Amino acid sequence: MPRRYFEDLAVGQTYRSTAPITVTAEGIKAFAREFDPQPFHLDEETAQPTFFNGLAASGWHTASITMRLLVESDLRPAGGTIGAGGESLKWPRATRPGDVLRAEIEILELRPSQSRPELGVVKIRLITLNQHDQPVQTCVPVLMFPRRTK
Amino acid sequence: MPRRYFEDLAVGQTYRSTAPITVTAEGIKAFAREFDPQPFHLDEETAQPTFFNGLAASGWHTASITMRLLVESDLRPAGGTIGAGGESLKWPRATRPGDVLRAEIEILELRPSQSRPELGVVKIRLITLNQHDQPVQTCVPVLMFPRRTK
Repeated sequence: MPRRYFEDLAVGQTYRSTAPITVTAEGIKAFAREFDPQPFHLDEETAQPTFFNGLAASGWHTASITMRLLVESDLRPAGGTIGAGGESLKWPRATRPGDVLRAEIEILELRPSQSRPELGVVKIRLITLNQHDQPVQTCVPVLMFPRRTK
Repeated sequence: MPRRYFEDLAVGQTYRSTAPITVTAEGIKAFAREFDPQPFHLDEETAQPTFFNGLAASGWHTASITMRLLVESDLRPAGGTIGAGGESLKWPRATRPGDVLRAEIEILELRPSQSRPELGVVKIRLITLNQHDQPVQTCVPVLMFPRRTK
Protein backbone atom coordinates (compact mmCIF):
# COMPACT_ATOMS: atom_id res chain seq x y z
CA MET A 1 0.00 0.00 0.00
CA PRO A 2 1.56 3.33 -1.01
CA ARG A 3 2.49 5.91 1.60
CA ARG A 4 0.90 9.34 1.22
CA TYR A 5 2.48 12.73 0.67
CA PHE A 6 0.93 16.15 1.42
CA GLU A 7 -0.09 16.50 -2.25
CA ASP A 8 -2.09 13.26 -2.09
CA LEU A 9 -4.54 14.67 0.47
CA ALA A 10 -7.72 16.73 0.04
CA VAL A 11 -10.06 18.30 2.58
CA GLY A 12 -12.98 15.98 3.31
CA GLN A 13 -11.16 12.70 2.62
CA THR A 14 -11.80 10.02 5.24
CA TYR A 15 -9.59 7.22 6.49
CA ARG A 16 -9.95 4.59 9.22
CA SER A 17 -8.08 2.23 11.48
CA THR A 18 -7.48 -1.23 10.05
CA ALA A 19 -7.41 -3.55 13.10
CA PRO A 20 -9.56 -2.80 16.19
CA ILE A 21 -7.95 -2.91 19.64
CA THR A 22 -9.62 -4.67 22.58
CA VAL A 23 -9.07 -3.03 25.98
CA THR A 24 -8.59 -5.40 28.92
CA ALA A 25 -8.88 -4.83 32.67
CA GLU A 26 -5.24 -5.92 33.02
CA GLY A 27 -4.16 -3.43 30.36
CA ILE A 28 -6.08 -0.61 32.06
CA LYS A 29 -4.41 -1.39 35.41
CA ALA A 30 -0.90 -1.78 33.93
CA PHE A 31 -1.11 1.60 32.19
CA ALA A 32 -2.46 3.20 35.37
CA ARG A 33 0.27 1.76 37.58
CA GLU A 34 2.86 3.46 35.41
CA PHE A 35 1.16 6.73 34.39
CA ASP A 36 -2.09 7.41 36.26
CA PRO A 37 -2.12 5.56 39.61
CA GLN A 38 -5.59 6.48 40.90
CA PRO A 39 -8.19 4.13 42.47
CA PHE A 40 -10.68 4.31 39.56
CA HIS A 41 -8.01 3.07 37.11
CA LEU A 42 -6.35 0.44 39.34
CA ASP A 43 -8.96 -1.84 40.91
CA GLU A 44 -12.58 -2.83 40.18
CA GLU A 45 -13.71 -2.66 43.81
CA THR A 46 -12.15 0.64 44.82
CA ALA A 47 -13.40 2.12 41.51
CA GLN A 48 -17.08 1.49 42.41
CA PRO A 49 -17.75 4.47 44.71
CA THR A 50 -15.81 6.96 42.54
CA PHE A 51 -16.69 9.44 39.77
CA PHE A 52 -16.45 6.58 37.25
CA ASN A 53 -18.68 4.03 39.07
CA GLY A 54 -16.34 1.20 38.14
CA LEU A 55 -12.99 0.49 36.51
CA ALA A 56 -12.24 2.92 33.68
CA ALA A 57 -9.17 3.48 31.50
CA SER A 58 -7.10 6.61 32.01
CA GLY A 59 -7.96 9.14 29.33
CA TRP A 60 -4.27 9.08 28.39
CA HIS A 61 -4.51 5.33 27.89
CA THR A 62 -7.40 5.89 25.46
CA ALA A 63 -5.27 8.57 23.76
CA SER A 64 -2.29 6.21 23.49
CA ILE A 65 -4.44 3.40 22.06
CA THR A 66 -5.81 5.94 19.59
CA MET A 67 -2.26 6.71 18.46
CA ARG A 68 -1.77 3.03 17.68
CA LEU A 69 -5.05 2.97 15.73
CA LEU A 70 -3.85 6.02 13.78
CA VAL A 71 -0.38 4.56 13.08
CA GLU A 72 -2.05 1.37 11.78
CA SER A 73 -4.75 3.22 9.84
CA ASP A 74 -4.97 3.51 6.06
CA LEU A 75 -3.81 7.17 6.25
CA ARG A 76 -0.15 6.02 6.07
CA PRO A 77 1.85 9.27 5.89
CA ALA A 78 5.17 8.99 4.06
CA GLY A 79 7.84 9.60 6.69
CA GLY A 80 5.66 8.26 9.51
CA THR A 81 2.76 9.47 11.63
CA ILE A 82 4.23 12.56 13.28
CA GLY A 83 2.05 14.86 15.35
CA ALA A 84 2.84 18.44 16.24
CA GLY A 85 0.08 18.47 18.86
CA GLY A 86 -3.66 18.83 18.82
CA GLU A 87 -6.73 20.84 19.72
CA SER A 88 -9.94 19.97 21.53
CA LEU A 89 -9.04 16.64 23.13
CA LYS A 90 -12.20 15.31 24.80
CA TRP A 91 -13.27 12.09 26.48
CA PRO A 92 -17.10 12.07 26.19
CA ARG A 93 -17.35 8.69 27.95
CA ALA A 94 -15.01 6.31 29.74
CA THR A 95 -13.23 3.38 28.08
CA ARG A 96 -14.18 0.20 29.96
CA PRO A 97 -12.73 -3.33 30.17
CA GLY A 98 -13.83 -5.31 27.12
CA ASP A 99 -14.30 -2.25 24.90
CA VAL A 100 -13.20 -2.74 21.29
CA LEU A 101 -11.86 0.52 19.87
CA ARG A 102 -11.50 1.78 16.32
CA ALA A 103 -10.74 5.21 14.84
CA GLU A 104 -12.21 7.39 12.09
CA ILE A 105 -10.18 10.15 10.45
CA GLU A 106 -11.24 13.13 8.33
CA ILE A 107 -8.95 15.65 6.64
CA LEU A 108 -9.98 19.13 7.87
CA GLU A 109 -7.27 21.56 6.72
CA LEU A 110 -4.12 21.52 4.59
CA ARG A 111 -1.38 24.15 4.52
CA PRO A 112 2.32 24.24 3.63
CA SER A 113 4.63 24.61 6.63
CA GLN A 114 5.96 28.17 6.87
CA SER A 115 9.16 27.20 8.66
CA ARG A 116 9.93 23.92 6.84
CA PRO A 117 9.17 24.01 3.10
CA GLU A 118 9.69 20.25 2.78
CA LEU A 119 6.66 19.64 5.05
CA GLY A 120 2.91 20.16 4.95
CA VAL A 121 0.72 20.71 7.99
CA VAL A 122 -2.43 18.57 8.05
CA LYS A 123 -5.25 19.12 10.54
CA ILE A 124 -7.47 16.06 11.01
CA ARG A 125 -10.55 15.11 13.00
CA LEU A 126 -9.79 11.89 14.87
CA ILE A 127 -12.67 10.09 16.57
CA THR A 128 -12.19 6.95 18.67
CA LEU A 129 -15.30 4.76 18.88
CA ASN A 130 -16.21 1.75 21.00
CA GLN A 131 -18.07 -1.39 19.85
CA HIS A 132 -21.41 0.44 20.33
CA ASP A 133 -20.28 3.21 17.91
CA GLN A 134 -20.10 5.62 20.85
CA PRO A 135 -17.19 8.10 20.85
CA VAL A 136 -14.77 7.62 23.75
CA GLN A 137 -12.38 10.29 22.46
CA THR A 138 -12.52 13.15 19.99
CA CYS A 139 -9.52 15.23 19.01
CA VAL A 140 -8.24 17.54 16.26
CA PRO A 141 -4.55 16.64 15.88
CA VAL A 142 -2.08 18.33 13.57
CA LEU A 143 0.17 16.00 11.58
CA MET A 144 3.28 16.71 9.50
CA PHE A 145 3.38 15.18 5.99
CA PRO A 146 6.39 15.34 3.66
CA ARG A 147 5.86 17.20 0.36
CA ARG A 148 6.67 15.63 -2.98
CA THR A 149 9.85 17.00 -4.47
CA LYS A 150 9.65 17.86 -8.16
CA MET B 1 -1.50 17.29 52.99
CA PRO B 2 -5.14 18.39 52.51
CA ARG B 3 -6.99 17.71 49.28
CA ARG B 4 -8.44 20.69 47.47
CA TYR B 5 -12.02 21.53 46.55
CA PHE B 6 -13.21 23.91 43.83
CA GLU B 7 -13.67 26.66 46.43
CA ASP B 8 -10.01 26.41 47.48
CA LEU B 9 -8.77 27.52 44.06
CA ALA B 10 -8.19 31.01 42.61
CA VAL B 11 -7.14 32.12 39.13
CA GLY B 12 -3.38 32.70 39.03
CA GLN B 13 -2.43 30.16 41.69
CA THR B 14 0.51 27.96 40.73
CA TYR B 15 1.32 24.38 41.65
CA ARG B 16 4.08 21.96 40.65
CA SER B 17 5.05 18.33 40.45
CA THR B 18 6.75 16.92 43.53
CA ALA B 19 9.09 14.19 42.20
CA PRO B 20 10.74 14.50 38.76
CA ILE B 21 10.58 11.55 36.34
CA THR B 22 13.63 10.37 34.40
CA VAL B 23 12.93 9.07 30.90
CA THR B 24 14.99 6.06 29.78
CA ALA B 25 15.68 4.63 26.33
CA GLU B 26 14.11 1.35 27.48
CA GLY B 27 10.99 3.17 28.67
CA ILE B 28 10.69 5.04 25.36
CA LYS B 29 10.93 1.77 23.41
CA ALA B 30 8.52 -0.14 25.66
CA PHE B 31 5.85 2.56 25.33
CA ALA B 32 6.38 2.68 21.56
CA ARG B 33 6.12 -1.09 21.13
CA GLU B 34 2.66 -0.97 22.69
CA PHE B 35 1.25 2.35 21.45
CA ASP B 36 3.39 4.03 18.77
CA PRO B 37 5.51 1.44 16.93
CA GLN B 38 7.49 3.68 14.56
CA PRO B 39 11.26 3.56 13.84
CA PHE B 40 12.08 6.89 15.54
CA HIS B 41 10.59 5.64 18.84
CA LEU B 42 11.89 2.04 18.75
CA ASP B 43 15.60 1.97 17.98
CA GLU B 44 18.55 4.40 18.22
CA GLU B 45 20.05 3.45 14.88
CA THR B 46 16.90 3.44 12.73
CA ALA B 47 15.91 6.74 14.41
CA GLN B 48 19.00 8.56 13.10
CA PRO B 49 17.91 9.34 9.51
CA THR B 50 14.32 10.30 10.51
CA PHE B 51 12.49 13.55 11.32
CA PHE B 52 13.74 13.26 14.91
CA ASN B 53 17.47 12.64 14.16
CA GLY B 54 17.69 10.08 16.95
CA LEU B 55 15.58 8.19 19.46
CA ALA B 56 12.67 10.30 20.75
CA ALA B 57 9.72 9.52 22.99
CA SER B 58 6.24 9.34 21.48
CA GLY B 59 4.37 12.56 22.22
CA TRP B 60 1.74 10.41 23.91
CA HIS B 61 4.45 8.99 26.16
CA THR B 62 5.38 12.53 27.19
CA ALA B 63 1.66 13.22 27.74
CA SER B 64 1.28 10.09 29.89
CA ILE B 65 4.35 10.94 31.98
CA THR B 66 2.87 14.43 32.39
CA MET B 67 -0.31 12.87 33.79
CA ARG B 68 1.78 11.10 36.44
CA LEU B 69 3.55 14.38 37.28
CA LEU B 70 0.11 16.04 37.63
CA VAL B 71 -1.34 13.22 39.80
CA GLU B 72 1.71 13.48 42.07
CA SER B 73 1.74 17.30 42.09
CA ASP B 74 0.76 19.51 45.03
CA LEU B 75 -2.55 20.39 43.27
CA ARG B 76 -4.21 17.33 44.88
CA PRO B 77 -7.88 17.61 43.85
CA ALA B 78 -10.34 16.05 46.32
CA GLY B 79 -11.90 13.12 44.48
CA GLY B 80 -8.83 12.58 42.32
CA THR B 81 -7.24 14.15 39.25
CA ILE B 82 -10.01 13.80 36.67
CA GLY B 83 -9.68 15.42 33.26
CA ALA B 84 -12.52 16.17 30.88
CA GLY B 85 -10.07 16.79 28.04
CA GLY B 86 -7.84 19.63 26.99
CA GLU B 87 -7.02 22.33 24.49
CA SER B 88 -3.83 23.25 22.65
CA LEU B 89 -1.70 20.17 23.24
CA LYS B 90 1.76 20.90 21.78
CA TRP B 91 5.14 19.20 21.78
CA PRO B 92 7.62 22.04 21.09
CA ARG B 93 10.60 19.66 21.30
CA ALA B 94 11.19 15.93 21.60
CA THR B 95 11.67 14.09 24.89
CA ARG B 96 14.99 12.22 24.73
CA PRO B 97 16.57 9.36 26.70
CA GLY B 98 17.97 10.72 29.96
CA ASP B 99 15.61 13.69 30.13
CA VAL B 100 14.35 14.51 33.62
CA LEU B 101 10.81 15.89 33.46
CA ARG B 102 8.81 18.05 35.84
CA ALA B 103 5.53 19.97 35.52
CA GLU B 104 4.30 23.46 36.31
CA ILE B 105 0.61 24.22 36.75
CA GLU B 106 -1.30 27.52 36.73
CA ILE B 107 -5.02 27.99 37.40
CA LEU B 108 -6.50 29.82 34.36
CA GLU B 109 -10.29 29.69 34.75
CA LEU B 110 -12.88 28.51 37.28
CA ARG B 111 -16.58 27.91 36.65
CA PRO B 112 -19.32 25.78 38.22
CA SER B 113 -20.39 22.80 36.12
CA GLN B 114 -23.74 23.47 34.41
CA SER B 115 -24.74 19.82 34.20
CA ARG B 116 -23.38 18.58 37.55
CA PRO B 117 -23.84 21.08 40.40
CA GLU B 118 -21.60 19.03 42.71
CA LEU B 119 -18.60 19.72 40.43
CA GLY B 120 -16.51 22.70 39.36
CA VAL B 121 -14.71 22.97 36.03
CA VAL B 122 -11.07 24.12 36.31
CA LYS B 123 -8.98 25.10 33.30
CA ILE B 124 -5.23 24.94 33.95
CA ARG B 125 -2.03 25.63 32.04
CA LEU B 126 0.18 22.56 32.31
CA ILE B 127 3.78 22.84 31.13
CA THR B 128 6.19 19.90 31.11
CA LEU B 129 9.86 20.91 31.31
CA ASN B 130 13.09 18.99 30.86
CA GLN B 131 16.26 19.35 32.95
CA HIS B 132 17.32 22.36 30.83
CA ASP B 133 14.02 24.16 31.69
CA GLN B 134 12.91 23.71 28.07
CA PRO B 135 9.22 22.88 27.50
CA VAL B 136 8.65 19.45 25.94
CA GLN B 137 4.87 19.73 26.22
CA THR B 138 2.34 22.51 26.78
CA CYS B 139 -1.36 21.91 27.25
CA VAL B 140 -4.51 23.54 28.66
CA PRO B 141 -6.42 20.68 30.31
CA VAL B 142 -9.82 20.95 31.96
CA LEU B 143 -10.14 19.22 35.35
CA MET B 144 -13.21 18.43 37.45
CA PHE B 145 -13.05 19.40 41.14
CA PRO B 146 -15.74 18.52 43.70
CA ARG B 147 -17.50 21.49 45.35
CA ARG B 148 -17.76 21.83 49.10
CA THR B 149 -21.20 20.99 50.39
CA LYS B 150 -22.56 23.45 52.96
